[in-house]
Amino acid sequence: MKLEILPVLGIGDVTEGDDLATLIATAAPWLRDGDVLVVTSKIVSKAEGRLVDVPADGPERLAARDEVLAAETARVVATRGATRIVQTHHGFVMASAGIDASNVDKTRLVLLPKDPDGSARALRAALRDHYQLDVAVIVSDTMGRPWRNGLTDVALGVAGMPAIRDHRGEIDPYGNELQLTQMAVVDELAGAAELIKGKCDQVPVAVVRGYLGVARAADGAGASALIRDAELDLFSLGTAEARAAGLREAAVLPDGPGPAPADPAAVDRAIAAVAEVVAPGTVFTHVTDDEVRAGLIASVPGWPAPAGGLVLGAPPAPVDAVDLVRFGADLQRLRTALAAEGISSALLPPPAGSTASAALAV
Amino acid sequence: MKLEILPVLGIGDVTEGDDLATLIATAAPWLRDGDVLVVTSKIVSKAEGRLVDVPADGPERLAARDEVLAAETARVVATRGATRIVQTHHGFVMASAGIDASNVDKTRLVLLPKDPDGSARALRAALRDHYQLDVAVIVSDTMGRPWRNGLTDVALGVAGMPAIRDHRGEIDPYGNELQLTQMAVVDELAGAAELIKGKCDQVPVAVVRGYLGVARAADGAGASALIRDAELDLFSLGTAEARAAGLREAAVLPDGPGPAPADPAAVDRAIAAVAEVVAPGTVFTHVTDDEVRAGLIASVPGWPAPAGGLVLGAPPAPVDAVDLVRFGADLQRLRTALAAEGISSALLPPPAGSTASAALAV
Repeated sequence: MKLEILPVLGIGDVTEGDDLATLIATAAPWLRDGDVLVVTSKIVSKAEGRLVDVPADGPERLAARDEVLAAETARVVATRGATRIVQTHHGFVMASAGIDASNVDKTRLVLLPKDPDGSARALRAALRDHYQLDVAVIVSDTMGRPWRNGLTDVALGVAGMPAIRDHRGEIDPYGNELQLTQMAVVDELAGAAELIKGKCDQVPVAVVRGYLGVARAADGAGASALIRDAELDLFSLGTAEARAAGLREAAVLPDGPGPAPADPAAVDRAIAAVAEVVAPGTVFTHVTDDEVRAGLIASVPGWPAPAGGLVLGAPPAPVDAVDLVRFGADLQRLRTALAAEGISSALLPPPAGSTASAALAV
Repeated sequence: MKLEILPVLGIGDVTEGDDLATLIATAAPWLRDGDVLVVTSKIVSKAEGRLVDVPADGPERLAARDEVLAAETARVVATRGATRIVQTHHGFVMASAGIDASNVDKTRLVLLPKDPDGSARALRAALRDHYQLDVAVIVSDTMGRPWRNGLTDVALGVAGMPAIRDHRGEIDPYGNELQLTQMAVVDELAGAAELIKGKCDQVPVAVVRGYLGVARAADGAGASALIRDAELDLFSLGTAEARAAGLREAAVLPDGPGPAPADPAAVDRAIAAVAEVVAPGTVFTHVTDDEVRAGLIASVPGWPAPAGGLVLGAPPAPVDAVDLVRFGADLQRLRTALAAEGISSALLPPPAGSTASAALAV
């Protein structure tokens, strides 16, 4: 009982139109049923002609590269400096959409295969039909990840085995149901193959032997099963991007109380959070007594009865003209929106003689 | 030229005080210099007594578990429902701080080793000193990751090899300097070992043979080299947490213009962003003409000359009492702080007769 990881040597340079099945079967006549073939996505892309011509250098190259990146991007996830982490049209979250300028001549960029699962299925079918080989195929690429330095190889596409090994329902010897239930085995296989590819330069294909039985498996759902929907992901946006989204949200807060009474402790936390920044003497009071609240609401013709409580605010001195309250709030909305744009601002005293305008220094 | 991944069978149950070096050397007399030994962190924790007693079930168990989690947590990164993703005191970002209730009896929880690099070094030293074996040791555990379904095994600790293989400065055959320069090979080795551990139940140790030369290596910097500082990480907080931080930030925006003039396009985007939410008739104007701006500033005694530009705001109708502008802005700060607490609010008309107070429905 063991696994072997074997390099496929002598494949050499791959160009558009090359038949990968023939290249691999010729380089590795020792391939067997049940082997897992791990193929670097770059040679798949090259064989499929997923290349774009760009200037060799200069600002023209950068501009062309940005254009290609925009075309490969479904959604920007995070940016810092020159780093662009995006979600591709496949759904993968990768730096620069996986566009690669290495191992290709200086005037071309390599894009990811258009359909890595389809590429894996096609290669598997060709090896089965023309070489009577029943193998699983993984199309791999190198990705970074949050929180940990260093990159690892993972699977972009797979055919002939499930992407995930599911332990759900299994019970450990102590009678506990297993907590960690779904292992991304194709990512572990891709990483294992990288260990030997990395040891021998120019080895775009490796074989993992001993992992699968030789039973003929269906192509399966592919590596797309590994893609988590952004709505389900706790890290769908970069921290800075999400923070800016929060600021923008603050700038356009919709009116209207929530459907349920607010948690009084949360209200008090909010009041405390602003205590330091409101004008000295300003007092905010959370009315928690239902009777008092009912009385206040009844006492003001036209006040809607809110589902929740009331917070009363009193400025330092009695003044008039309610519109200015709303105006001040609107100025604050603007200040928040400016902050979301990275601009700090200051409310200035009004021009002499004017009581009907305000100014922000930005 | 190949790698082999071999399971170490027959280690059986590990309990506090067990000598892992002896257990492993006895179970795997075939170990060789240059092997990479991948040891599941759980048996390291058990041997080191990193266990806590908890009630077998009920709310007491949950409460005890929460207490243990809090003690293992350096920083909460993201939460949703029962999920708690935290940074441990080691610096690892993991669900539930890596606390595990599987493969241990129901009245105990297994914590991560206190110093996984130290554990790896100690095991390596014991194998060298008592069994004349020169191996590298990886202490592994299972982790989830953003964006991709399924878990993989990675390295918590390592001794005897570098955690990262660095290709910096290497040139590909086309003359391009390599872009993907640092491979987290110990994570790939940990994942490779999981493939065989997962195939045979109760196999906490596996060996990767053929990866290292037999040259005696230093212990090295350990897996701590894989930990990325939160300040350098683009995903140091969950999206919801960062969004809430943005809202809190909006609630306490400091006064004061920025040191440099604001990008006019950004100012206009900010004005446009709030155009829909400010009172009908309210007009915000960005003064971009330096002379006009200088004139305005000069015309108002006491106005500071801002480094940047001005934004003038005019409410629907001329009114008085500037304090209310600041008051309205403060109310808006409060509304934003409430929103950061998940509470929506509405500014109500003032109580009859009063012009000196306002109310929020929450």
